[in-house]
Amino acid sequence: MTRSSAAAVSTATPISRYPVPRLEDMPADVRARIEEVAQKAGFVPNVFLALAHRPDEFRAFFAYHDALMLRESGLTKAEREMIVVATSGANDCHYCVVAHGAILRVYAKNPLVADQVAINHRKADITPRQRAMLDFALKVALASREVGEPDFAALRAHGFTDEDAWDIGAIAAFFALSNRMANLIDMKPNEEFYLLGRVARAR
Amino acid sequence: MTRSSAAAVSTATPISRYPVPRLEDMPADVRARIEEVAQKAGFVPNVFLALAHRPDEFRAFFAYHDALMLRESGLTKAEREMIVVATSGANDCHYCVVAHGAILRVYAKNPLVADQVAINHRKADITPRQRAMLDFALKVALASREVGEPDFAALRAHGFTDEDAWDIGAIAAFFALSNRMANLIDMKPNEEFYLLGRVARAR
Amino acid sequence: MTRSSAAAVSTATPISRYPVPRLEDMPADVRARIEEVAQKAGFVPNVFLALAHRPDEFRAFFAYHDALMLRESGLTKAEREMIVVATSGANDCHYCVVAHGAILRVYAKNPLVADQVAINHRKADITPRQRAMLDFALKVALASREVGEPDFAALRAHGFTDEDAWDIGAIAAFFALSNRMANLIDMKPNEEFYLLGRVARAR
Amino acid sequence: MTRSSAAAVSTATPISRYPVPRLEDMPADVRARIEEVAQKAGFVPNVFLALAHRPDEFRAFFAYHDALMLRESGLTKAEREMIVVATSGANDCHYCVVAHGAILRVYAKNPLVADQVAINHRKADITPRQRAMLDFALKVALASREVGEPDFAALRAHGFTDEDAWDIGAIAAFFALSNRMANLIDMKPNEEFYLLGRVARAR
Amino acid sequence: MTRSSAAAVSTATPISRYPVPRLEDMPADVRARIEEVAQKAGFVPNVFLALAHRPDEFRAFFAYHDALMLRESGLTKAEREMIVVATSGANDCHYCVVAHGAILRVYAKNPLVADQVAINHRKADITPRQRAMLDFALKVALASREVGEPDFAALRAHGFTDEDAWDIGAIAAFFALSNRMANLIDMKPNEEFYLLGRVARAR
Amino acid sequence: MTRSSAAAVSTATPISRYPVPRLEDMPADVRARIEEVAQKAGFVPNVFLALAHRPDEFRAFFAYHDALMLRESGLTKAEREMIVVATSGANDCHYCVVAHGAILRVYAKNPLVADQVAINHRKADITPRQRAMLDFALKVALASREVGEPDFAALRAHGFTDEDAWDIGAIAAFFALSNRMANLIDMKPNEEFYLLGRVARAR
Repeated sequence: MTRSSAAAVSTATPISRYPVPRLEDMPADVRARIEEVAQKAGFVPNVFLALAHRPDEFRAFFAYHDALMLRESGLTKAEREMIVVATSGANDCHYCVVAHGAILRVYAKNPLVADQVAINHRKADITPRQRAMLDFALKVALASREVGEPDFAALRAHGFTDEDAWDIGAIAAFFALSNRMANLIDMKPNEEFYLLGRVARAR
Repeated sequence: MTRSSAAAVSTATPISRYPVPRLEDMPADVRARIEEVAQKAGFVPNVFLALAHRPDEFRAFFAYHDALMLRESGLTKAEREMIVVATSGANDCHYCVVAHGAILRVYAKNPLVADQVAINHRKADITPRQRAMLDFALKVALASREVGEPDFAALRAHGFTDEDAWDIGAIAAFFALSNRMANLIDMKPNEEFYLLGRVARAR
Repeated sequence: MTRSSAAAVSTATPISRYPVPRLEDMPADVRARIEEVAQKAGFVPNVFLALAHRPDEFRAFFAYHDALMLRESGLTKAEREMIVVATSGANDCHYCVVAHGAILRVYAKNPLVADQVAINHRKADITPRQRAMLDFALKVALASREVGEPDFAALRAHGFTDEDAWDIGAIAAFFALSNRMANLIDMKPNEEFYLLGRVARAR
Repeated sequence: MTRSSAAAVSTATPISRYPVPRLEDMPADVRARIEEVAQKAGFVPNVFLALAHRPDEFRAFFAYHDALMLRESGLTKAEREMIVVATSGANDCHYCVVAHGAILRVYAKNPLVADQVAINHRKADITPRQRAMLDFALKVALASREVGEPDFAALRAHGFTDEDAWDIGAIAAFFALSNRMANLIDMKPNEEFYLLGRVARAR
Repeated sequence: MTRSSAAAVSTATPISRYPVPRLEDMPADVRARIEEVAQKAGFVPNVFLALAHRPDEFRAFFAYHDALMLRESGLTKAEREMIVVATSGANDCHYCVVAHGAILRVYAKNPLVADQVAINHRKADITPRQRAMLDFALKVALASREVGEPDFAALRAHGFTDEDAWDIGAIAAFFALSNRMANLIDMKPNEEFYLLGRVARAR
Repeated sequence: MTRSSAAAVSTATPISRYPVPRLEDMPADVRARIEEVAQKAGFVPNVFLALAHRPDEFRAFFAYHDALMLRESGLTKAEREMIVVATSGANDCHYCVVAHGAILRVYAKNPLVADQVAINHRKADITPRQRAMLDFALKVALASREVGEPDFAALRAHGFTDEDAWDIGAIAAFFALSNRMANLIDMKPNEEFYLLGRVARAR
C-alpha cells in the first residue's frame, strides 16, 4: 500500500474525532500490520487508522482481538462474528455493526444474517444452538453482574464446553471495550463494508 | 401479478407466524392493492401478505400508513423514512428496519444512511435539523410520557412547524404499532429489501 | 348534536395542543361519525375532536379501532378494554387511562377493576386467565422484541387460541400508537369519563 | 366502632396476604387509633388493619406518617397528598394510589386531579410550582442517587424553602417504604376510596 | 458524652445538607438516645445528628428501625444487616453502605462479607439460603410491583416462614426510605465506620 | 516467589470458575510477570492467576492495562484508579471494586475515597474536576451511544484536553471488558485487598 491510498481513505470524511497519523509517521510494526491488512482486504479498515493514534493501545487491541478471533475454538469464525455483531447492535456501535456485519456475511456466505442478528437475534434465521450462544453473549454484554451457573448450564445443553463459554463471553467482553472506543472517538466505518458480502446469495 | 408469483414469495420461508392467504382468496380491494404494489415494486413486500390475514386491519393499516407517508408535508419522503428506520431500530423490529431501510436508501439516493440511522442516529451523517427530527421521533417512540413544550421548541429552533411536529410524532407512533405487530407475528422481510438501493453510489 | 354543544365541550379547557376544528368545518363523514357517538354517549369524547384536525388520520384511526374492538373475538369487550387500560397505564397515557377506564367499568359492570388494572394488573381482582392475557399484552407493549413461542404457549395454557393472541397483541399495538398520539398532542379526557361507571356497584 | 363493623370490612375479600387481627385482640393504643380514624372517616382504611399484624411497626409507621403529613409546612395538605399519589403511581402501588387519591380529591376539592397526577403528573392540570414539586418528589422516589444542588435550586426558583424540600423528599421517601409494604403484603384498598371525593364538582 | 465531643464530630465536614442541632438544643429524649448510642459505640453515628434536625421524624425513624432490627426473628442480626447493605448498595446510598457495612462486619465477625454483598450479592460468599433472602429483598427494593406468590414460594423452599418474608421485605422497605433520606440530605458516614470490623479476621 | 506461595493463595477458595494453572506450568513470560508483581505487592493478585488460563489473552490484557494505566497522562494514577473504581461499581464487579479500591486508597493516600466513589461518585468528597471526569467515564461505561460533543465540552470546561478525554474514556472502556471477564469467570479478589490502604489516615 502506498501512502496516497491510506490518505485517500482517511481524507474523505473524518473517520475519528482524533488525529489520524500518516502511514509514514507510524511505528514500523503498526505500519506493517496495516499494510498487511490492506493487502488482504483491498483497503484499510478505519479502526486500524483511528487506533494508530495511540500505538501501544493499537498493539494491545489487535493482540487481544487476534487472541480471541483467530484461536482454535469450538466456535466457527462466522459464529464469533455473530457474537460481535449481536453485541455491537445492542450497544448501538455504528463502526462495529457495519464492519463486522460485512465480515460475518463473508464468513457465513450469507448476505442476510448480519442485519438480522444486529437488529434482533431472537428473530434471526439461526440455529437454536446459535440462539443460545447469542443469549449468553448478550447477557455478558448487558448484565454480566447476573451471569452464573444457570447460564453455563444453558450453553452445555446445546453442546458448548466451558471453554466455548469463555470464548463467547470474552468476545462479548472485548467488544464491550471496542464498542465504547468506537463511540467515544466517533469512528466511521469504510464505505466498502456496507456492501461487502451482500451480493453472493442474493443473486 | 399472477397467483404463482405471490406463492413463490410466500413459500420460501414462513413470513408470518399466522396463515398467509392466497391472493385469490383475498377480498378484491386487498388483492387490488397488492397487485398494484407488486407492479410498482417488482415484488410483494411481505407486510401486505401477512396482514391480509385480517382484511379490516389490513385496510386500516395501509390507510393510516398512506395518510402519514404520502401526504403533503414539510418533511421529505426520505426524512419520513428516516423516522421509520430510526424508531424501528430502537424497537429492534427486523421487518421494518430491513424493508424501510431499503426504501430510505432509494428515496435518499444514499446507500449508507439507512444502516447509520438504524444503528445510532447520533453518529449518522445527517444534518443537525435531521438529528433534531430524530431526537423528537425517538422521544415519542420511547418516552412519550415526557414529551412537552421544550421538545416542540427544539424542533422550532430548526425551522420545523407544529404541523411538522405532528408528522414526526405521528410517524413514530404509527411505527410503534407497526413494529409491535411485526414482532408479534414474526414477520420476515423479503430478501429483495436487503440489497435494494445499496449499489447506487457505492460503485 | 348542535354546533354549540360541541363548542361547549371544546372551549372549557384546551383538549389538544393543536387546533380543534368546528363541527361545521369537518368533512361530512367525520362529522357524521362524531354526531353518532355524541348521540350514543351523550357527549363527544375528546379524541374525536382532537383527531379531526387531520381527517385522513381520523378515518384510519377509527377504522383500525373498530376493526379490533368491535370484531367477533374470543375476548369479551370488557377484556379488550382491560388490555387498553393496562397498556395505557404502562405508557402513562392520561387520556386513554381515564376514557377507556370508564368504558371498562361500564362493560365489566365493575366500578373497581379499571383503577386496579391501570395501576398494577398483577394486584388486580381478575381471573388467572385475564392475568395471562394482560401479561402478554404488556410484553407486546413494552418488550415486543422478546415476544416468542413461550409467550404464545402461556396463552394457550389458559385456553386462548392464536387468533385471540393476535387480538391481544394487536390491541396492545394499536394503543401503543394511540398512547403516543395522546401524549404528543396533550389530549385531555372529558370530565364525564372520570365518574362514568363508578356508581353502579359502589352504592 | 363496634367489632362487627371492622369484621364487615375485613372479611369481604382478603385485604392482606397476612393475618388481620381482630380489633379486640389488638393492643389498646392500636385499637384506639383505629377507632378514632373509624369515627372520623366512617370506615377503617385497610392499612390500619393490615399493619396491626405488627403493632410496633404499626406505631412507628403512623408516627412517621403523622410527623410528615400533619406538621406545619409550606406545603398544603393537598400538595402533600399530590406527592403521595404521584410517587405511588410511579411505584404502581394499588393501595396508595386508590386510598390517597381519595384523600387528595377531598383535600383539593377537585375530583379530577388525583387520576391525573397518578397517571402522569406532566400532563396534569396543576400549577408550574406543583409541577416542580412533583418533579423533585419523583426524582427522590426513582433516582435519589442523583439528587443534588441543581434539584434544590429548581425548587427555590419556585419559592420553595429548603425545609419545604425536606418535606417533599421525606414524603416521597416515606411512601417509598409504604408502597413497598403494600406491594409486599398485597394490601387492598377499601371500596369506599374509589368513589370518595369524585362527585363534589363533577355534578 | 460531652457537648464538645459531639461538636468535634459534627464540625469536621458537613455531615448533612441541613443544619445539625447542638446536643444541648435537642429535646431530652432525642438527646438521651444519642448519648446512649455514643456510650455504646464510642462515637455518634451521623444519622442520629442529621435526623435530629426534625425530632418527630427522628423518633419515628428510630422506632421503626428498632421494631425491625431488634425484634425476635427467624433472621439473625447479621442477616438483617446483609439485607440493609445489599439494598443500600442497589440504591447507591453512601451513608447506609458504609455505616451498615461496618455493623454487618461486626455482627458476622467477617471482614469481607459487607463489601461483597454491597457490590454484588450474587458473587458473595454467602449460603444459598442467604442468596434467596437477598434476591427477595432486592426485588422488594427495586421491583415491588412484581412481588407475588412465586417469590414467597422461593423463600419457603429455603425454610423461611412468611413472617421471615415480612421481616426481609420490611427491612428492604424501611431502607428504601432511609436510602432516599440519606441521598436527599447528603448524609456523610463517620470515618470510624470505614475501618470498623475489618481487622478481626484479616490478621 | 516460590511455587508454594502461589499455591497458598490459589487453594484457599476457588478464585475462578476456570482452572488456574500452576506457576511452573505457565509460559516463561507469563510466569515472569507474575513473579515481578508478587515481589512488588507481596502477593499475587488473583487476576494474574485467573487469566493465566489463557496466556495470549493474559498478555494482551496486561499490555492494554499498562498502555492505559502507566502512560504519561494529564491524569494522576489516583485519578485513573478512581475511574476504574467508579465504573466497576456501576458494573457491580466484585473483583475490580475491591482490588482497584485498594490501589486507589494507596495512590490517593486516602482510606475513604474508594468506598465513596464505588458507591456513588456524586456524593464523594472529590473535586468538581474529578466529578466531571467520573461523569464522563460513567457515560462511556453505561451509555457510550450517547457520548458526543457536549460531553467533551464539559471536560474542557474543567481543563481536560482531548487526550485526557481519550484516557478517561479508554480506561472506562477497558474496564468494561475487565468487569465482564471478572463477572464471567467469578473472579475473587485476594483477601489482602480488602484492608489495604485503609489504616494510613484513619489512625
